[in-house]
Amino acid sequence: MTDLQQALVEQLGDQCVSLDPGVLDAHAGDWSDTEKRRPSLVLTPRTPDEVARALGVLSALRQKVVVQGGLTGLAGGATPQAGEVAMSLAKMNAIEEFDQVGGTITVQAGLALEQLQTHVEAQGWFFPLDLGARGSCQIGGNAATNAGGNRVVRFGVMRDLILGMEVALADGTVLTMMNKVTKNTTGIDLKQLFIGSEGILGVITRLVLKLEPKPTVANTALCALGSFDAATRLLKELRRRLPALSSFELMWDDFMSAAMEIGGLKAPFATRSPVYVLVETLGGSEESERKALEEVLEYALENEIVDDVIVAQSLDHARQLWAYRETVGELLSRLKPHAAFDVGLPMIEMDGFVTAMKQALTSRFPEQTHLFFGHLGDGNLHLLSGPYANMADMHQVETLVYEQVQKAGGCISAEHGIGVVKQEFLHLSRSSAETDLMRKLKNLLDPCGILNDARVIAPDLSQGGAQPATPAPH
Amino acid sequence: MTDLQQALVEQLGDQCVSLDPGVLDAHAGDWSDTEKRRPSLVLTPRTPDEVARALGVLSALRQKVVVQGGLTGLAGGATPQAGEVAMSLAKMNAIEEFDQVGGTITVQAGLALEQLQTHVEAQGWFFPLDLGARGSCQIGGNAATNAGGNRVVRFGVMRDLILGMEVALADGTVLTMMNKVTKNTTGIDLKQLFIGSEGILGVITRLVLKLEPKPTVANTALCALGSFDAATRLLKELRRRLPALSSFELMWDDFMSAAMEIGGLKAPFATRSPVYVLVETLGGSEESERKALEEVLEYALENEIVDDVIVAQSLDHARQLWAYRETVGELLSRLKPHAAFDVGLPMIEMDGFVTAMKQALTSRFPEQTHLFFGHLGDGNLHLLSGPYANMADMHQVETLVYEQVQKAGGCISAEHGIGVVKQEFLHLSRSSAETDLMRKLKNLLDPCGILNDARVIAPDLSQGGAQPATPAPH
Repeated sequence: MTDLQQALVEQLGDQCVSLDPGVLDAHAGDWSDTEKRRPSLVLTPRTPDEVARALGVLSALRQKVVVQGGLTGLAGGATPQAGEVAMSLAKMNAIEEFDQVGGTITVQAGLALEQLQTHVEAQGWFFPLDLGARGSCQIGGNAATNAGGNRVVRFGVMRDLILGMEVALADGTVLTMMNKVTKNTTGIDLKQLFIGSEGILGVITRLVLKLEPKPTVANTALCALGSFDAATRLLKELRRRLPALSSFELMWDDFMSAAMEIGGLKAPFATRSPVYVLVETLGGSEESERKALEEVLEYALENEIVDDVIVAQSLDHARQLWAYRETVGELLSRLKPHAAFDVGLPMIEMDGFVTAMKQALTSRFPEQTHLFFGHLGDGNLHLLSGPYANMADMHQVETLVYEQVQKAGGCISAEHGIGVVKQEFLHLSRSSAETDLMRKLKNLLDPCGILNDARVIAPDLSQGGAQPATPAPH
Repeated sequence: MTDLQQALVEQLGDQCVSLDPGVLDAHAGDWSDTEKRRPSLVLTPRTPDEVARALGVLSALRQKVVVQGGLTGLAGGATPQAGEVAMSLAKMNAIEEFDQVGGTITVQAGLALEQLQTHVEAQGWFFPLDLGARGSCQIGGNAATNAGGNRVVRFGVMRDLILGMEVALADGTVLTMMNKVTKNTTGIDLKQLFIGSEGILGVITRLVLKLEPKPTVANTALCALGSFDAATRLLKELRRRLPALSSFELMWDDFMSAAMEIGGLKAPFATRSPVYVLVETLGGSEESERKALEEVLEYALENEIVDDVIVAQSLDHARQLWAYRETVGELLSRLKPHAAFDVGLPMIEMDGFVTAMKQALTSRFPEQTHLFFGHLGDGNLHLLSGPYANMADMHQVETLVYEQVQKAGGCISAEHGIGVVKQEFLHLSRSSAETDLMRKLKNLLDPCGILNDARVIAPDLSQGGAQPATPAPH
C-alpha cells in the first residue's frame, strides 16, 4: 500500500477504499463524450464526517480528487483527470428527517433524485425538480450543478429549492448550514457559493430541501401558433391567469416533423404551423383548473394568439401530447456524433437567434440536421446538430453557436454546466473580472487545488490572463 | 479642502460631494434606534462608473465609507460610524431597459421600490416584492438585505427576483453580471455573494429583475381556527389546491384583540378563536379563482380545519379584513420603547416557541404587552414586546428570545438583517466556521476594510475568536 492508501484506509476502513479494476472502470467517466479515465482509486465514504476526514488526508498529501455523484453530467466535470482519485457519494443516501408540518426534508447528498421524489410523494408531498437522469443523478450533484429541467417556469431551479446545506471544504473543515426557513438574513448566505459551482469549492454532504404539497391534477394542452412572437404572448397570458402553469415547452416545426418521423407519430393538427407549444398545469382542484386553462386558451384562440389547440382528455391523451417532445432521446442517438447545445437567451433575442443559426448552419453544413426546441419560459434553448464525421466540423459548429449566443446577450450553458467541455468558451459568457474573482474564491477555499481542479475555470493563471478580456453582455 | 475632498471632487465634481450640515443630518442614520451620527461628508454619485471611481479614491486613501439607500433599514447598518463618509445612491435611479417580451427590467440601484412597482404596473407587469417602506426603500438596498415582505409564499424573497447585477468592489473594480435568463450555469454565481450581505462585500449599482404579468384579480379571506396545528394543515391544503396563494398571515388571538382595540375595529366573528389567518390570492381569472378559493375553504370547514370563514365580497371588504393585520404600525408606536423581533423558525417549532415565550415573558415582565404574528408560510415570526423603561430590561428580553430561537433551530433575523444591532447575537445563528469564512470573504473582497465595515460580522478577529463556538442547528 502507498502512504496515501494507508492514510485513507486508516480514516475510512478498507471497505471504502477500492482499487478493484471493475470499480475503477465504473468510475471512469460521466455521460459526456470526454475520454474515460480510470481514477487511481475510488473512495466511498459512508458519512459526511468520513468525507471531511478523507479530504483532510487528501489535502495534507496534496492529492487531487474528483467528486462523483450519479455520473450523469454532460460536461465532463466528473470524469477523472490524470492522477486523480475519485470520491463517490453513492453510499451517502440516507433520508435523515422528513418534516411534514413545514414541508422540508433533510437528506444526504448521495440520494438519487427519483428515490427522493418517490419517498415524498408516498406521503403527499412533492419535490418539483425533475430531469431525464432522475433515476441515476444524485441530489448533491443536482445542487452542485444547479439543475433545471421541465418545471422551472413554476418552481424555479435547484437553487430555489435549497434551504440548508452542509459542505466539507478541501481542508476537511465542515460548514454546517442546515437552515430550514425561507427567510434568513443572518449575514452572507454562504451556501449559495457552492450551488452551481460544480464542486470546485467544496463537497456538498447534506441538504435541507423545500417541498410542495403533492399536486393531484395535471392538465395538458398542445397549441399550434403562427409565430414565435405569438408564443411569447401566450406565455404572458398563461402566467397571468394560470399560476398553476408548470411547463411551457416550445418546439419549432422542423423539430416537430423530425419527432413525428422518428417516433412514428401522427400529425397533431390538420395543417402545419411554424411553432408548437406544450402546456402543462399542476394543481389540486380538477374542475376549476381545467376551466381556467380552457378559458385562457379560448381567449387565445379568439384573439388569434393561437391557431389551434388540443386539450388532453385523459392521462393517456396527455402522454400522447408529450410524446412529440420526448422523442429527444431518440433524436439524440440518431444524430450522433452530434453537437448538442443548451444555451440561455433573453426571450426577445431567441427568434432572431434561431433564424440566424438555421441559416448559418444549413449553409455551412447542408448535409446535417439542425433542430431547435426549448423551455421558453426560462430562456433555455436546446439545439441538436449532426451527425458530424470529424471533430473539426463539430468544433466549428460550437464556435459558431457560442459566438452568436454572446452577441445575443445569452449564456453558453443554461442547465448542463461548464465542466471541461465548455471551458474554452467560458470567456464568451463571463468577463475576465468575473473569472479572476472565481479564481480567487477557488484559491481561498481550496488553496492546494485538490478539489475538482481544472474544471469550470482554466487551471493556470497565465492561461487565464491570456484569454481575451471579453466584456459581459449588458 | 482636505486631500480626500479634493480627490473626490476631481472624480465626481463638486455637486456630488457635500459638506452641507443639512445634507449631513439627512444622512445621519436609518430607521433603527441606533444613535444618529453625521458622516464627515456625503457622496452622491450619478452613475455606476462614478461609484467605482469614488471607491477607488476611498480605497487608495483608506477612507471608510457607509453605503446608503433609502435609509429604511431597522438594523443600523446604514447609520454612519465614527470617521465614515456616506455614499448615497439616491441619484442613481434610472430605469435603463424594460423588456416587455421577456418580462425583465434593468434598473439602477437607487430606484425606489414603489417607483419601480408603479412603472411596470402601468405597462401590465408586476414586481412582486412589497414591504411597508416601499415609498423610500431602494431596490439596491432591497437586494443588499435580501428583502422579504408579505408575498414571499408565492413569489419568493428578493434573491429569487434578481437575474443580473452589477457591483463595484471596494478597490473600484466593476463586476458586470447583467444576466437576463432564469437558467445560467456558467461557473460560480458571483452575484449571490452580494445579495443579503448588507453591503460589506461590494456596492450594488445596477440590477436585472424578473417581472410577473400583472395580476388583475385578488381574493381575500379571513379564517378563524382552533389551533396553530390547524393553520399548518390549512396552509398545506391551500398550497396544494391554490397556486395563486400569495399571502398567508397568521395572528394569535391576543394580537387580534390588541388590533381591534387600537384600531377601533369590530370583532370579525361572533366568538373568539385562538388563531386567525388572513389569506390572499392573486391572479387573472376572477370566477375560477374565487370558486377554487371557496372550494378549499368549504373543504376546510367540512373537515374542521377551520371554524369560521369570511370571504371578502368587494375591494372595500378586503381592505377591512386586512385592517386587523395592518394595525401593526400603530401597535409599534404605542408599545415604545419596545423590543421588536423578526425571527425565522421551522414551522413545526413555532407553536411551542410562542407558548414558551409567552410564558417566559409574561412571568418576567407582567406589566408589558407581548404580541405575536407572522408570515407562517415563510417561517417568519414577529414579536412585539414593550414598553420597556430601561435598556437593561430590553437587553434581557432580546437575550431570552434569541436564545430560545437558537434552541428551536431558527434564525435571529428573517427579514431585517444583522447590521449592528444584532451582531452580538449572530453566533446564535451562525457557527464560528461560518463566521470565519464570512470574514475571509470580507478580507478577500475588501482588504482595506473600507466598505460598510464593522457591520454584520464583528470587526476584530480576536473578538470573533473569543465568541463561543456554537454549532448551527441541524
